[in-house]
Amino acid sequence: MYQSQHDPLSPEKHIFDRAIALKQQPDGNWQGHTSIDYANMIGPFGGMTAATALQALLIQPERLGDPVALTVNFAGPVRDGAFEVRVRMLRSSRTTQHWSVEIVQGDDCVINAIAVFALRRPTWSETEIVMPEVAPADTLPLVGNMMGVSWPQCYDMRFARGGLRGVDGIGDNPDSLTQLWINDKPPRPLDFASLTAICDAFFPRLFSRRAQLVPIGTISLNIHFHADAATLAQQGSAPVLGVAQGQIYNLGFSDQVAQVWSAQGQLLATSQQAVWFKE
Amino acid sequence: MYQSQHDPLSPEKHIFDRAIALKQQPDGNWQGHTSIDYANMIGPFGGMTAATALQALLIQPERLGDPVALTVNFAGPVRDGAFEVRVRMLRSSRTTQHWSVEIVQGDDCVINAIAVFALRRPTWSETEIVMPEVAPADTLPLVGNMMGVSWPQCYDMRFARGGLRGVDGIGDNPDSLTQLWINDKPPRPLDFASLTAICDAFFPRLFSRRAQLVPIGTISLNIHFHADAATLAQQGSAPVLGVAQGQIYNLGFSDQVAQVWSAQGQLLATSQQAVWFKE
Repeated sequence: MYQSQHDPLSPEKHIFDRAIALKQQPDGNWQGHTSIDYANMIGPFGGMTAATALQALLIQPERLGDPVALTVNFAGPVRDGAFEVRVRMLRSSRTTQHWSVEIVQGDDCVINAIAVFALRRPTWSETEIVMPEVAPADTLPLVGNMMGVSWPQCYDMRFARGGLRGVDGIGDNPDSLTQLWINDKPPRPLDFASLTAICDAFFPRLFSRRAQLVPIGTISLNIHFHADAATLAQQGSAPVLGVAQGQIYNLGFSDQVAQVWSAQGQLLATSQQAVWFKE
Repeated sequence: MYQSQHDPLSPEKHIFDRAIALKQQPDGNWQGHTSIDYANMIGPFGGMTAATALQALLIQPERLGDPVALTVNFAGPVRDGAFEVRVRMLRSSRTTQHWSVEIVQGDDCVINAIAVFALRRPTWSETEIVMPEVAPADTLPLVGNMMGVSWPQCYDMRFARGGLRGVDGIGDNPDSLTQLWINDKPPRPLDFASLTAICDAFFPRLFSRRAQLVPIGTISLNIHFHADAATLAQQGSAPVLGVAQGQIYNLGFSDQVAQVWSAQGQLLATSQQAVWFKE
């Protein structure tokens, strides 16, 4: 297990913490840098960019409570290299805060995100959807190199159902429903930033559904968080169960929903994602 | 059927068009006014505020194509009266645009919204989720006055399943799953603005689930659109089928998902909504 260090770019830090590290600039904005560890086919893994947008809020001294809702719109391709993060607090009450985050490279806005934070308090509680019954993580095979890109190597992924069509010998999928155990590799205690990245770690449902690999790109990722920081910390570095399924593919965009469960059956996050695709 | 008029505030206009009407100010921002027709218990129906945020983008001369994704965060209570809408285009390509919308009253940000627009083009197409089989709208009873508030009177709603617990004699619900036919009253041709409002017209799932009416408020509404303007126009003013269900209620916030289907079985929009609740 990696330990937190004072210097976020220290080589002793976990690769995830180095990837989301931000440094404040004289003008008050924040500077980050894409991580080669989390590289995608072109540019960085979108989940890491989304996690960085959330991280920019988590480190604000005025930040109140925990994230409740985060929407990250991917405005353009993120180029490998440095980027600037601009944060604005639009509204704050005693219990709720509204934020805006833009990530820019040069003159280009690459991320347009908004978020709600809140002090979470015990209330009537119920989970209406049901966690699927799947084989335990340690009984399932570890996924090897996927699609020749770097970022999946930063996760321990074990598919209980679904997968990439034509990859790993899983074969055809009658639908895009995927159930997989996932955690950071090397292990790292779960927090809101890593949970955000995990919400984007489901491959585009199109790749699970169709044999043909067409150009795709996430255009909007919406995440609702259902646990507080203490509950996430209790998960330690155990794998979480991700469940993802496409709803529709039409006119160049598809829509997928996902749920992330703790091994103990607690629903930690739900998400909805819009993905651009070609052909 | 109401016809479009030049003056958006003309009494001949549909109440919906009057409610979303915006007038440009000398500083370039837009001014609107809450509608008494769409009043909620306190302030306006949130769906109408979300529709107004989208309308502010739809009327931009630089606007490209159709909305693909819209997220509306409700930053604070909207007071009855005038409000100002501030629109920014953050990025534009040949096929995609990214926007930000803030609605303010005095010094208070009340809406923090972002959206993606795109030119939609024919591609491989499939709908993976299935439209539920329900009784046709005209065989189901029209819902009468609900909860004594104004905005439900602006809709023709007919429940095929679920409803408000303890209201309308529907009785207890084992879960929060609701299926209802809904359209504007008086009838109005469907468009992106009215579809946005409909995505918020499902009562909070907590009210469908529990007998106890507790204070609630939508905090974040995320919508993905799956049809282009021409397809929506083809719906005319026929009712659409809304399907909504809660996923979790925990630590003061709940999460609900919804789908909106045309009577012909086309999935028009999907949404995810976070709702604050007390106790």
